[in-house]
Amino acid sequence: MKAVVLLSGGLDSSTVLYQAKVDGCECYAISFDYQQRHQRELESATAIAHMAGVREHQVVAFDLRLWGGSALTDSAINVPEGRSLDEMAQSIPVTYVPARNTIFLSFALAYAETINSQRVYIGVNALDYSGYPDCRPDYVQAMQEVFRLGTRQGREGQPISIMTPLIDLKKTEIIQLGNQLGVPWEQTWSCYTGGEVACGVCDSCQLRLAAFAELGLQDPLPYAAKSH
Amino acid sequence: MKAVVLLSGGLDSSTVLYQAKVDGCECYAISFDYQQRHQRELESATAIAHMAGVREHQVVAFDLRLWGGSALTDSAINVPEGRSLDEMAQSIPVTYVPARNTIFLSFALAYAETINSQRVYIGVNALDYSGYPDCRPDYVQAMQEVFRLGTRQGREGQPISIMTPLIDLKKTEIIQLGNQLGVPWEQTWSCYTGGEVACGVCDSCQLRLAAFAELGLQDPLPYAAKSH
Repeated sequence: MKAVVLLSGGLDSSTVLYQAKVDGCECYAISFDYQQRHQRELESATAIAHMAGVREHQVVAFDLRLWGGSALTDSAINVPEGRSLDEMAQSIPVTYVPARNTIFLSFALAYAETINSQRVYIGVNALDYSGYPDCRPDYVQAMQEVFRLGTRQGREGQPISIMTPLIDLKKTEIIQLGNQLGVPWEQTWSCYTGGEVACGVCDSCQLRLAAFAELGLQDPLPYAAKSH
Repeated sequence: MKAVVLLSGGLDSSTVLYQAKVDGCECYAISFDYQQRHQRELESATAIAHMAGVREHQVVAFDLRLWGGSALTDSAINVPEGRSLDEMAQSIPVTYVPARNTIFLSFALAYAETINSQRVYIGVNALDYSGYPDCRPDYVQAMQEVFRLGTRQGREGQPISIMTPLIDLKKTEIIQLGNQLGVPWEQTWSCYTGGEVACGVCDSCQLRLAAFAELGLQDPLPYAAKSH
């Protein structure tokens, strides 16, 4: 069975790719170059795709920066640092990029239908303070309807399924799953900033470090600073 | 009120833009350069956007050609010519591009949320033999749910509305509407091929010519051949 896997190069999507392999899928990875502040995560995606032995890895480039509105794409907005986990849980964060997962899933859908794939895997996760509207189960359900109604494959045959193996997992559980699956953590990249090494203080680094610490495990990735 | 208008430069989307103006909207046009076989329709979109006095016109470039699978993007598949209207009605045509409207609407959604727009206009049309799965009302309904659930604006305020003023109109009715609104037909481009003048024999040219003929009107666009 063919599967398209959305691969950012982060901890979550890398785990999803290895899960898709275990599910018996022949994997086609897709990543996006949308002029995010740094290219580091794209390099991670390429390395992970190679190590996981995907059949093909597509990198789709487009310009989302012109829209601004997010700390991840607009250099005028600072990536928050050193926030507590409770502060992160308050609201949709400034790292929210308008309609990002909708764009990503749309391209994945096009890719899946073109290669006649039955599944699209995405590493969305509704827990652990992410706060993003386009990571929640009701949103995924709505996109599943779009997958069914918006394609030839969905109208005339079997709709392409959106697979979200991480949606109900805590970050610690994702790391446990990834450990079982042999995900090469040292190749992944979660940091929102683009330094030589991960910053250790942005929301994403903090969530990752806290989860490794809670499990009593060592994150093999080097960090500039560690809050946990 | 701000509105994002999906503008291909064709008869339908040009009419939609003029309708959005009449609805009292400040218009932001968005077009796509996805390595379609010709750039002619993008030139039309730019001309129409200028004539309609939009506030801004964004052209988003990405590469969809690598996926193939459609006569509009894959040069190995021929655009059908000289089909009867009944033949067109049989099935989803080879000019279907996988997930195209889903990708277009996703970018429009991102644009709309970034500029804090309340509406996205799209010239989909469920009648007149188009046959595309992503032009039908149930599909638009599903995307509306994605607009509601997949954005900050939809979760915390008023969801962005998808406006489909042409969805129930026949091609002749669209032309009558466009005539009332003063759409400059000579600037629009509907042809699926990329010649100096419109071919007159592809499905899109035929539908357009048949509709003008039915109304007893002259299409001001020059054609290489005319079947009606």
